[in-house]
Amino acid sequence: MAVYTHVSDEALASFLSDYDLGNPRSFKGIAEGVENSNFYLETDKGRYILTLFERRVDPQDLPYFIALKRHLASKGFPCPAPVEARDGEALRKLEGQPAVIVTFLDGLSPRVPNPAQCRSMGAGLARMHNTLADFPLERENALGPASWPKLWKGRAEAAEELQPGLADLIEEDLSAIAGARPHQFEIPRGTIHADLFPDNAFFLGDEFTGAIDFYFACSDALAYDLAVCLNSWAFEDGKEYNYSKGAALIAGYESVRPLEPHEKEVLPLLCRGAALRFFLTRLVDWTDTPADALVRPKSPLDYAERLAFHRKAVSAADYGA
Amino acid sequence: MAVYTHVSDEALASFLSDYDLGNPRSFKGIAEGVENSNFYLETDKGRYILTLFERRVDPQDLPYFIALKRHLASKGFPCPAPVEARDGEALRKLEGQPAVIVTFLDGLSPRVPNPAQCRSMGAGLARMHNTLADFPLERENALGPASWPKLWKGRAEAAEELQPGLADLIEEDLSAIAGARPHQFEIPRGTIHADLFPDNAFFLGDEFTGAIDFYFACSDALAYDLAVCLNSWAFEDGKEYNYSKGAALIAGYESVRPLEPHEKEVLPLLCRGAALRFFLTRLVDWTDTPADALVRPKSPLDYAERLAFHRKAVSAADYGA
Repeated sequence: MAVYTHVSDEALASFLSDYDLGNPRSFKGIAEGVENSNFYLETDKGRYILTLFERRVDPQDLPYFIALKRHLASKGFPCPAPVEARDGEALRKLEGQPAVIVTFLDGLSPRVPNPAQCRSMGAGLARMHNTLADFPLERENALGPASWPKLWKGRAEAAEELQPGLADLIEEDLSAIAGARPHQFEIPRGTIHADLFPDNAFFLGDEFTGAIDFYFACSDALAYDLAVCLNSWAFEDGKEYNYSKGAALIAGYESVRPLEPHEKEVLPLLCRGAALRFFLTRLVDWTDTPADALVRPKSPLDYAERLAFHRKAVSAADYGA
Repeated sequence: MAVYTHVSDEALASFLSDYDLGNPRSFKGIAEGVENSNFYLETDKGRYILTLFERRVDPQDLPYFIALKRHLASKGFPCPAPVEARDGEALRKLEGQPAVIVTFLDGLSPRVPNPAQCRSMGAGLARMHNTLADFPLERENALGPASWPKLWKGRAEAAEELQPGLADLIEEDLSAIAGARPHQFEIPRGTIHADLFPDNAFFLGDEFTGAIDFYFACSDALAYDLAVCLNSWAFEDGKEYNYSKGAALIAGYESVRPLEPHEKEVLPLLCRGAALRFFLTRLVDWTDTPADALVRPKSPLDYAERLAFHRKAVSAADYGA
């Protein structure tokens, strides 16, 4: 929930005059997304979302994200399609910040996805991977394993405060990832979403209608994207692994792109890594956010619970594959 | 900016099943309104706003507000029209709270309205008053003059902290209002909006397209509504009275409903009262809100500046009438 930047009438009018979208008919801040300011924008031509990029998103990465969404949309994968202004540029400035208008995507984000939605989303995730197979740009995963020791440094005490004994367990997780042999990660790579949580996916009924919020997208192992989704879609109340949801998600994925045997072998390690990534970034937010901040960060403990599950998992079968 | 209550998928689906609106196609929290939770809701049938009533709005008053909007909408005055469920009831429950679906209103709220918008809104305000002339329900103005001494009680020190010398001035304002002779308030009464700030008014270009947020509506002097608007539309940066905006607002109003001589006479007093009302409620919010609250209240000082202007005004001509 966030609208950080206020847009003046004059700034909006001037901004829209660069487009062929007609006059604005509605403009409302949306309580969605924690990284950027999003607005529902309706013009004579249709419905759009206007995004102003705030903190965390590196402006240098924006052309990559725009190109990625344009690639997906042009190939028929449902996602917000960047709208070009008359000069052909979709990435512009508004109120001094980078801004983009994208098409409006129908659908609702489930708070607690059901197994049918997990299956449909799994298939969508695989379609997204296939659609991006010929996407030419590369972006390093800034939150990949190499970044985790840095995120962890100096935060063991905070972890202990959250849950006594947790720091040692996190150290073990980090060692397990660091100790993995290189061949374990020789799995198919491509462009991944890397943050496809339920609130970044839309549905009409049980049918997946598209993905939004590609601001963590990067070049990485495709199965890691699946691991991120297993973490964010298949745990009940952030604790118990829901086997039927996880199995549905994997089956949906495999209905479009069957996993290779080696991808299945490393799935527990990938899931553990994905949980560690979200545990660590939440821990950073947790420790870095002043107590009187406007937005309280999410507790890292949900991901500590997931890590406990992943540590015990030995094969993809434990996830329902 | 506020979405206080989260709506689960099941609760929304169950809620919508009582209506003939088809299936939901989009559902997004809107960063608008500080009193209630508002959601952009799109269904197979069209676009709507779903409001969940939170604190401050007395549930007993809701039937009045619903009836008022229905009256306006049925007579063609542009405002959100309550949508009835199949049983004929528009006021319902969602997530345990009173909730209503209203039609979507096109238009944008100006941050800094221009004189043409002030004129158009003034005419709209008078049309609203005329349209409500045969509205049969009554509601006392809970924030009328009788409430002001109670709001002020125990807050003189807080006012002094904001601006040394302010407490005495506020005492003077209260005395001036209390000392007004009864015949001064023998002016046309009716149903007023009582909170028609720019963010509660919509425009397409310079044309007023409707009003929202009727949750302070009540039975009171019609010219008091105009006084509220002069305070909220015609001061630049909360300080200087913009004569051309004020004159445009009054001229727009009078193009539909000319003010009676007696209404003009008491306009300075009404403006002073309206400024005092908003000063006092902001002062209450200011002193009652803990320092670590999620939403920082607006400073009461903007209205202290307006009061300084109104104290000096001697006739409606000072406002451009």
